[in-house]
Amino acid sequence: MSEQTKKVLDSFKTANRKIKSFEEALGVLYWDLRTGAPRKGMDVRSEVIGELSADMFKLSTSPELGEWLSELERKEVFASLSEIDQRLVTETRKDYNRSVLIPPKLYQEYVVITSQSESKWEEAKEANDYAGFKPYLDKVIRYTNQFIDLWGAGQTRYDTLLEPYEPGMTVAELDRIFGGLREQLVPLSAAIASSPNQPDTSFLRQQFDVAAQKDFSLYILQQLGFNFEAGRLDESMHPFATGLNPGDVRITTRYLKDDVTSALFGTIHECGHALYEQNIMDQLIGTTLCTGTSMGIHESQSRFWENVIGRSRPFWNRYYKELQARFPNLSHVSCDQFYRGNNVVQPSLIRIEADELTYNLHIIIRYELEKMIFNEGLTAAELPEVWNEKYKQYLGIAPATDSDGVLQDVHWSGGAFGYFPSYSLGNMYAAQFANTMEQQIQDFWQLVEAGNLLPIKEWLADKIYQYGKMRTPSELVQSITGQVLDPQYLVTYLTNKYKDIYKL
Amino acid sequence: MSEQTKKVLDSFKTANRKIKSFEEALGVLYWDLRTGAPRKGMDVRSEVIGELSADMFKLSTSPELGEWLSELERKEVFASLSEIDQRLVTETRKDYNRSVLIPPKLYQEYVVITSQSESKWEEAKEANDYAGFKPYLDKVIRYTNQFIDLWGAGQTRYDTLLEPYEPGMTVAELDRIFGGLREQLVPLSAAIASSPNQPDTSFLRQQFDVAAQKDFSLYILQQLGFNFEAGRLDESMHPFATGLNPGDVRITTRYLKDDVTSALFGTIHECGHALYEQNIMDQLIGTTLCTGTSMGIHESQSRFWENVIGRSRPFWNRYYKELQARFPNLSHVSCDQFYRGNNVVQPSLIRIEADELTYNLHIIIRYELEKMIFNEGLTAAELPEVWNEKYKQYLGIAPATDSDGVLQDVHWSGGAFGYFPSYSLGNMYAAQFANTMEQQIQDFWQLVEAGNLLPIKEWLADKIYQYGKMRTPSELVQSITGQVLDPQYLVTYLTNKYKDIYKL
Repeated sequence: MSEQTKKVLDSFKTANRKIKSFEEALGVLYWDLRTGAPRKGMDVRSEVIGELSADMFKLSTSPELGEWLSELERKEVFASLSEIDQRLVTETRKDYNRSVLIPPKLYQEYVVITSQSESKWEEAKEANDYAGFKPYLDKVIRYTNQFIDLWGAGQTRYDTLLEPYEPGMTVAELDRIFGGLREQLVPLSAAIASSPNQPDTSFLRQQFDVAAQKDFSLYILQQLGFNFEAGRLDESMHPFATGLNPGDVRITTRYLKDDVTSALFGTIHECGHALYEQNIMDQLIGTTLCTGTSMGIHESQSRFWENVIGRSRPFWNRYYKELQARFPNLSHVSCDQFYRGNNVVQPSLIRIEADELTYNLHIIIRYELEKMIFNEGLTAAELPEVWNEKYKQYLGIAPATDSDGVLQDVHWSGGAFGYFPSYSLGNMYAAQFANTMEQQIQDFWQLVEAGNLLPIKEWLADKIYQYGKMRTPSELVQSITGQVLDPQYLVTYLTNKYKDIYKL
Repeated sequence: MSEQTKKVLDSFKTANRKIKSFEEALGVLYWDLRTGAPRKGMDVRSEVIGELSADMFKLSTSPELGEWLSELERKEVFASLSEIDQRLVTETRKDYNRSVLIPPKLYQEYVVITSQSESKWEEAKEANDYAGFKPYLDKVIRYTNQFIDLWGAGQTRYDTLLEPYEPGMTVAELDRIFGGLREQLVPLSAAIASSPNQPDTSFLRQQFDVAAQKDFSLYILQQLGFNFEAGRLDESMHPFATGLNPGDVRITTRYLKDDVTSALFGTIHECGHALYEQNIMDQLIGTTLCTGTSMGIHESQSRFWENVIGRSRPFWNRYYKELQARFPNLSHVSCDQFYRGNNVVQPSLIRIEADELTYNLHIIIRYELEKMIFNEGLTAAELPEVWNEKYKQYLGIAPATDSDGVLQDVHWSGGAFGYFPSYSLGNMYAAQFANTMEQQIQDFWQLVEAGNLLPIKEWLADKIYQYGKMRTPSELVQSITGQVLDPQYLVTYLTNKYKDIYKL
């Protein structure tokens, strides 16, 4: 490597490290806002976040960075780079192009508008006032369309929005995947609804001591292999996970007095995200490669741990006694009752409260709507009606209010179009990975039943976690399972699970 | 004001606001590190802090800032500025000159060295290994001397180190003040030691429920007027206060199972700092004037609330019953016993555990040693011996180990020379302010005895807090008390207090 290349590489990596440092600082500021920052300081805090974000954006779009990238992309130079540095160049180029094509003034306007729109959404949801929110949503859609124009459309305009959340994913691919999924899940959901063997869920609505819930959350985290020297558990209104660096990964949960399962499965879900971030290889620390490779793969990990493991019968065969020991009001509830009660399938209106099966239908609806907005020009004014129709069609129910319908999610108000598919992709990746695990990890379910979960974490760390952004989602699926993403694994997993529970 | 001036002023204020934003971000990062950030992420976090600090340093020393300052300092331009903007120019100029004279490379080396030195100090204190720490301290002293060369010495070299902590304070002034203080406190301390009326302290060493301690801390904070919508109370190894902005002021305390007074007086102390920061006027928000005017004045507030109010007899006449209600094991201890037990004077080795009187002797020793280091060339090798001699001379005892002696404080390892005097200045300011308050606030001690503390907070907010950095320490003392700082107020306060307690 020439002296000149070394110098350029060094400048490039220093800039990248700096961007990553700003990401961590902003991560702490957001975490702090959501876990208990005093109310009166929030306005100033927003300005502080604005200042740092603007600086980070400037760093990410500087002309020098563009020059370094061009130099490092020269064929013979690129070939001389290490694998990590090559990847860093490729990934940074993607982010750079995406950011640099947006005029800073337009981006600033967008930041202000989405911030206003999110506030307005909060009010509108509270007041069931879609009409009040509509002009803001209109604006966000208009700006997003401008961005698509600037970035250039993929095969379809909506393809362009999928890329940052799930690199390589396309509308054609999602149509194939979601099409297959919808076709099989709608009848399965109907069969379940008409089964005479509905689980008992009455025991779920009791009072559960919050301190004991917290204690059990910490215990389960430790069982799952969460590293408390490299992370912490806090409380927030909406649970989330944030990986500042592999040595500092924070998750939150929310304890409800009258529901022991909300915090429990929420904690396991966020723990899945955390295990991913805690186990990224040291060599990536301080680079922008040091995070999960996509939203979909990230979600596959939260959902694998929450659903495939955490809602499985072997898991509760092992841990139910420990739960009962902490909550005497479960003493009359059998393990089988508890297991079945936590795996109820029931069409519902609210995505975040949905079960493992119908959840995917909520996502497919949003995917189809987003596609209609950006590929067919569906307007904000038309959204609620189409929303309600699709709910009727896929779930058999329709919301009585927009608050329970089109207003329920924050995503669109903040401009996060293209994000929703990741959730279902996560379910599908999780099922496909689990299928491989069952073949490759000896006595897989016996390990779960014995509470010996660390080999599973190690397997995932080895195959997925360590790589951070070094491998793309499709590279991971191919290398691990030997196949492209196939929705059939999720369908089979769900069919088997519910056949047993609902005696279909 | 000309268009040109307006533009310059605007650029200047935008830059200043940005510096303040970085200060808040760094404040959150430090707060987070000290209140529970995971251990494994600390190295990366240090780098993040380093990156942001470097950026802030760059902002604070940019040539443009220098040009804007020069423009705004032009006589007719300066005269056209508002009072706040004038002050902002004056204060920024001081910081600018101080920073711009240090070559960035030298400053970076210093940051690394003090960081290493702090780590080494921690180990050395633990292992009573002064020899291991000495080379680091040598380096820190060498760098500090280089800084003095670059800044230029005041009347003496050590004067230059006092300025950032207590603007306007000089060695000549401190010699006068501390000389008078030492001369009177040493014999007072001796008289107390030989009094036959020693307070009973046996009841202090019992077990005290931590949850009840926390509850009482929160109660007392509320009584003192701490605004919980603009602040929070957390726990940390070493209690501290940090004012991110007046709407977000955070304090910490530390609960000991076998000592109810540590967290109690610690909380009141930090609350004093917090009341100052919470009550700065809105017009200063977002500027670097939005903080306490000096370490000494800040410390006067923590010490006023902790000692003058919190360790007074009227205060406990009001609140002791509430404390007893929470701690049944104090039921046999009378209010008088409790009051006297918490005001024991006893020469001791550790500064942070010292009583109100001997505390000042610990500070005077450090002041004299710092003066010797920078004005007379006392070396790190010679320090422990002189330390021990001075303890013998002023307090009548000498440490058996360096951990209990010269290694006890973190300050020097981090290069904070010139800081220690602020603590005693705080005691003196507090006593002098209290003297004025007794004259100006009607029925001052009756208010305390009635638990009607808000008028006292309001008086302080009106005279001190609201101004932030708009007034210098000496301006405050002069305007409030009509006099320069006079140690006699502290001597009189202590003499009267202990005459009563020890029946001298």
